Amino acid sequence: MRIAIFRKAHFNAAHRLHNPKWSDEKNKEIFGLCNNANYHGHNYELEVKVVGEVDPETGYLMDLKYLKDIIKINVEDKLDHKNLNLDVPELKDIMPSTENVCYFIWNVLQQKIGKDYDVTVRLYETPRNYVEYPA
Amino acid sequence: MRIAIFRKAHFNAAHRLHNPKWSDEKNKEIFGLCNNANYHGHNYELEVKVVGEVDPETGYLMDLKYLKDIIKINVEDKLDHKNLNLDVPELKDIMPSTENVCYFIWNVLQQKIGKDYDVTVRLYETPRNYVEYPA
Amino acid sequence: MRIAIFRKAHFNAAHRLHNPKWSDEKNKEIFGLCNNANYHGHNYELEVKVVGEVDPETGYLMDLKYLKDIIKINVEDKLDHKNLNLDVPELKDIMPSTENVCYFIWNVLQQKIGKDYDVTVRLYETPRNYVEYPA
Amino acid sequence: MRIAIFRKAHFNAAHRLHNPKWSDEKNKEIFGLCNNANYHGHNYELEVKVVGEVDPETGYLMDLKYLKDIIKINVEDKLDHKNLNLDVPELKDIMPSTENVCYFIWNVLQQKIGKDYDVTVRLYETPRNYVEYPA
Amino acid sequence: MRIAIFRKAHFNAAHRLHNPKWSDEKNKEIFGLCNNANYHGHNYELEVKVVGEVDPETGYLMDLKYLKDIIKINVEDKLDHKNLNLDVPELKDIMPSTENVCYFIWNVLQQKIGKDYDVTVRLYETPRNYVEYPA
Amino acid sequence: MRIAIFRKAHFNAAHRLHNPKWSDEKNKEIFGLCNNANYHGHNYELEVKVVGEVDPETGYLMDLKYLKDIIKINVEDKLDHKNLNLDVPELKDIMPSTENVCYFIWNVLQQKIGKDYDVTVRLYETPRNYVEYPA
Repeated sequence: MRIAIFRKAHFNAAHRLHNPKWSDEKNKEIFGLCNNANYHGHNYELEVKVVGEVDPETGYLMDLKYLKDIIKINVEDKLDHKNLNLDVPELKDIMPSTENVCYFIWNVLQQKIGKDYDVTVRLYETPRNYVEYPA
Repeated sequence: MRIAIFRKAHFNAAHRLHNPKWSDEKNKEIFGLCNNANYHGHNYELEVKVVGEVDPETGYLMDLKYLKDIIKINVEDKLDHKNLNLDVPELKDIMPSTENVCYFIWNVLQQKIGKDYDVTVRLYETPRNYVEYPA
Repeated sequence: MRIAIFRKAHFNAAHRLHNPKWSDEKNKEIFGLCNNANYHGHNYELEVKVVGEVDPETGYLMDLKYLKDIIKINVEDKLDHKNLNLDVPELKDIMPSTENVCYFIWNVLQQKIGKDYDVTVRLYETPRNYVEYPA
Repeated sequence: MRIAIFRKAHFNAAHRLHNPKWSDEKNKEIFGLCNNANYHGHNYELEVKVVGEVDPETGYLMDLKYLKDIIKINVEDKLDHKNLNLDVPELKDIMPSTENVCYFIWNVLQQKIGKDYDVTVRLYETPRNYVEYPA
Repeated sequence: MRIAIFRKAHFNAAHRLHNPKWSDEKNKEIFGLCNNANYHGHNYELEVKVVGEVDPETGYLMDLKYLKDIIKINVEDKLDHKNLNLDVPELKDIMPSTENVCYFIWNVLQQKIGKDYDVTVRLYETPRNYVEYPA
Repeated sequence: MRIAIFRKAHFNAAHRLHNPKWSDEKNKEIFGLCNNANYHGHNYELEVKVVGEVDPETGYLMDLKYLKDIIKINVEDKLDHKNLNLDVPELKDIMPSTENVCYFIWNVLQQKIGKDYDVTVRLYETPRNYVEYPA
């Protein structure tokens, strides 16, 4: 029996959008307020979907405590109360758009959770703007 | 990198459900309170999903301000604070059920956003009743 | 033991804001899109607060089923799927602003629930705009 | 025109997770607080998705009142204010994990709604933990 | 500067409403489905409001981590994944209505937080039914 | 007729909590992750309550567009996509705790809206932590 389970988590972080190959004018034109040199921030909401088979002994696809811990160690501890441009080595040379942060989180979680499961990550930057990978 | 972005919007509108080919009795039987000749209304919530490739220069699938403006001009300005039976020429001969209004919105947005992107529209008539196209 | 209980309900209705003593121009200037002659509408969310003493036999301030029924008969059955300007005799000569509809609902409920209890009504026209009486 | 409609419902129930083939120690180790012999409970939120064709006469995929009644009779009346381990004959020998309860609900609803429609059920045990079948 | 801070928490529990001084018939008549001898349950949401003075050194009324811990130790650890009729000594002879559970939580928290602060507790049994003490 | 109206708004900002009179160790001990020198951030949600008399000509306590504009000019334009420690002159020497930011917003809005109305501001730093002034 193939089923999907979902777990929500969240983290608060600062970031700015800035392409170092562009002039300040072009950065301001393209990214607007998101280019503020002093950063701004968000309460990111994360929805992790895991698809796989149910274990008949437990009735679980996966122990939710285990999933919660994987998300905590690999995502929340890395990103919560951090500056996404400065504090996260893996994101150093990556534009911290919601698209790219979502893909980064998916990549970490799919590796940790393993190939028996298909992971999808939805990342809310605000309640009105969000991103999902894979599409 | 193929990804999905989502943007929410909303509009408030009046409507009634009435099939002019039917008797008043049949309309009342089928549509119940939704058939009220004086109209009733909703706060429609709209979720627009766009699937496509991320631009490596910006980290964006699409500038959300651009998407927000397309939704505003083509959906909100057309439907907000309107009567869906009387005020929207494109809906004149169409039953303004959530299904048909959702399809109308999808059709407009898919054309405006263009063939490089796949658009999905979810339309909430109430927090408990909603519709999605394509399925 | 004096305590407060809350019960939520909702109704969907059409309305327009229009002062018949004013010119069409002034109505349009003051009420904008809300003046649309063909009406628009909302999903109204209602929060009813009742303050009183807890009955030691039941542990209830009031049977919630009783409160739910009072709200259904006196508010939902009167306003749901209605046009607030045309279909509700008690609102005929009253501007159906959220303020006035909230006061109308409070007045009905305070009378029906009776003087042993203090009623407060909060009425959401949209999730971002709402009104409470008494203040 | 193939489209999806969604309807939300809810029920409140008690349950415990316990595998009778295991020792009490193993049950406590695997299920933790969820193994409490005296039960605990949840406000389950249910999202039912139905995919099919729109009827051009009504603009409906399906009369939502009909869908609401199917959910009420087959799910809410069976599970609401019940103990999922003791009060539901169909669940007697099944671990009442969210995964298994979701599958049970899907199975009932897909049969009642019939083969012309594709049903998907999402079941929220809490706002942060939920399950969807089919995946 | 007198201000209010709020902190949300939650717990999942089973309960039933039953007055041992009444006949089974009267219990069923008054409490309906809530009288089920095998219990049912809820995801209780808790909102704790604390009013007091802001400390000019920290800008805090109270360290939220301290408040979170007081709620965890005194409310969540006592009530989460429990049966409110059987597992909580302080509630043994008390009808576990939302009103009485709310008052119990307020009483514990007001004592622990101390007389320099005024505590108010709002307890949601469901998103539509909730209680607040003091009123 | 004295009534309350509410309007919601939001802004995204970065901040850090740091008392310059303390050592780095004490700052870390008291503020924990909130002391991160590179900042973190939030989606702040703002609820503005205004109490006053209803104008019988309009049925309004106050034109919501006017209230929305006052909030936009005086709060959103000042704080949105900003660093609360560096970009807001009025907050330069103030610890940007939710308590202090809430009081700052209240002070600006009460002055702009004027003495005929009583303003209350509720500021959500996250959906689980929020503050209200006056209490």
